[in-house]
Amino acid sequence: MALIRILVDLMGSDSSPEFLYQGALQAHELLKNECHIAVIGTPQSFELCKLQYENAPLEFIEAPEEVLMDESPLLAVRRKQNSSMAVGIRRLKENQCDAFVSAGNTGAINAYSSIELNKLPGISRPALLADLPTQKGKTSILDVGANISFRPESFFQFALMGAAYQKVKRGIQKPKIGLLNIGVEIRKGTRKLQTAYTYFLERKDLMEKHQIFFEGNVESRDLFDGNIDVLVTDGFTGNVFLKTTEGVSSFILKQIHKRFLKQDLSEKNESFKELEKYLDYEEYPGALLIGVDGVVVKCHGSSSMVAMLSAIKGAYSHVKSDIVPQIKRHLENFHKLI
Amino acid sequence: MALIRILVDLMGSDSSPEFLYQGALQAHELLKNECHIAVIGTPQSFELCKLQYENAPLEFIEAPEEVLMDESPLLAVRRKQNSSMAVGIRRLKENQCDAFVSAGNTGAINAYSSIELNKLPGISRPALLADLPTQKGKTSILDVGANISFRPESFFQFALMGAAYQKVKRGIQKPKIGLLNIGVEIRKGTRKLQTAYTYFLERKDLMEKHQIFFEGNVESRDLFDGNIDVLVTDGFTGNVFLKTTEGVSSFILKQIHKRFLKQDLSEKNESFKELEKYLDYEEYPGALLIGVDGVVVKCHGSSSMVAMLSAIKGAYSHVKSDIVPQIKRHLENFHKLI
Repeated sequence: MALIRILVDLMGSDSSPEFLYQGALQAHELLKNECHIAVIGTPQSFELCKLQYENAPLEFIEAPEEVLMDESPLLAVRRKQNSSMAVGIRRLKENQCDAFVSAGNTGAINAYSSIELNKLPGISRPALLADLPTQKGKTSILDVGANISFRPESFFQFALMGAAYQKVKRGIQKPKIGLLNIGVEIRKGTRKLQTAYTYFLERKDLMEKHQIFFEGNVESRDLFDGNIDVLVTDGFTGNVFLKTTEGVSSFILKQIHKRFLKQDLSEKNESFKELEKYLDYEEYPGALLIGVDGVVVKCHGSSSMVAMLSAIKGAYSHVKSDIVPQIKRHLENFHKLI
Repeated sequence: MALIRILVDLMGSDSSPEFLYQGALQAHELLKNECHIAVIGTPQSFELCKLQYENAPLEFIEAPEEVLMDESPLLAVRRKQNSSMAVGIRRLKENQCDAFVSAGNTGAINAYSSIELNKLPGISRPALLADLPTQKGKTSILDVGANISFRPESFFQFALMGAAYQKVKRGIQKPKIGLLNIGVEIRKGTRKLQTAYTYFLERKDLMEKHQIFFEGNVESRDLFDGNIDVLVTDGFTGNVFLKTTEGVSSFILKQIHKRFLKQDLSEKNESFKELEKYLDYEEYPGALLIGVDGVVVKCHGSSSMVAMLSAIKGAYSHVKSDIVPQIKRHLENFHKLI
């Protein structure tokens, strides 16, 4: 079998290129029989990496420019056609790699991808999808940061993509969709959310023909019960939600450490370590930019080495399970029947 | 010393009047030497309470109407002048009680209070303030649900109120203010948030004269480090944030139970119980409706008996520490100097 080719962006993150490079190296060690991992960045960034990790086996692809974290995505797209992100996404488009992973400016990843790659059938805006652990399994949440503004049609598209993802990724045959809101009643939340609720209700029958079930509003408190498979929200709220779960988990893990290390309990206890791993968001695969025809993964969390390793593992798994072509087929079928 | 008079609304919550009544009874047991607790509700709701808790020592105040959870706050205010909430807040205005506690419709609590009670100096809209534990102490977050929409001026008012609260409640002399956003850069987030950031920057010197320090944007992930004393956000985002922290905490506690009860560890271990108590949001005092001249507390969480008990304890502590008059003085001083 041919190796899965993953291209990793070293630039423009909250972290340093060397850290991300180290994550890519670890991924290479782990997956070298199945993946070819290349890194993309400016020549200057490579010098440091090469200095620190001599004779490292990863392929280097040069791009002269970098999109910065605080840069306007639209300006970046217009002015930096040779940024590591632009070159990387073009290579994905031209089938020179199978997945692109970046820890950089989310808006820019979305903007470059939306321009260069084809959209999936019926999708006008891609969304970032992340999976969260619950009492029962994993819930997919989208959008966790690709779009700040939203329209009800986008929410509906997010729901269809999330449902297709859960069907393909986890074999959930009748995925349940919820809208993130501050109360379950139809009147709750912003006017836009009320409109979105009505928009979904009007398409309830259509969705059910495709075995997709709209369950109304969900409060973030109740999400962790695991009764919803796909949580739909706008990119601002979804991003706050995701980062809050990360923040609370990390806070509680630190509290456990503080309280139990004293008694020398947590170090001895295997279950503790297992729980820590389970709650460590850096161990979770990055967020998938769903809605474009290609595997684009945004590295999770604070772009540490571990987070990059996890994002690469996520990208590998998405390519291997052929997730994008399968989601595409689901969306085609949906639109045929309208 | 005169008893502190707390009036508890039994109506219109996700819970039943009997449950809330039980919370009020427990508060009475705990605080009877310092508080006089009365309950307000419909005659029907009292019958059940009286049946279940014969000879209970709480005073009953009758109100013929109830505001429902899914009712429009504006319609409720217009049509239900004799709801338990309306009567309760009027009694607070007329100094027939020192604090009003409700687990009902948040929008309606805010609407009745805004109409009946005086606003604090310079405040056009009240906000719900909640305290969250962090690595270093407690951060106050507002608004956690009183207003869905917002203007930059409101955010600034929230910041001033939050700062005054932290000065008075915890003696923090130089409170640090953060804006909840999805990145630290000034460009991040919605246009409204960008405008709010600029609005704060323009008033940075003025704030610093009053020992209030604007620290820019904060991501929810970093909040738990405890470097910010007051987190400012709109009521929708704040409510999602708060309920997410509740959801994640409860999820993790359940995971701990599942994993460690097997080994019979958590039951034996005192530190576990202490941690559970620390992370249990029902143990936290309800949210204070800050910005009106009176102590109005919204019962936290899912309005259980424990949450009601905690909200009453919170109300008691606010009255005892004279928090509203003190915040009022801080705001007066601020506006004198403009």
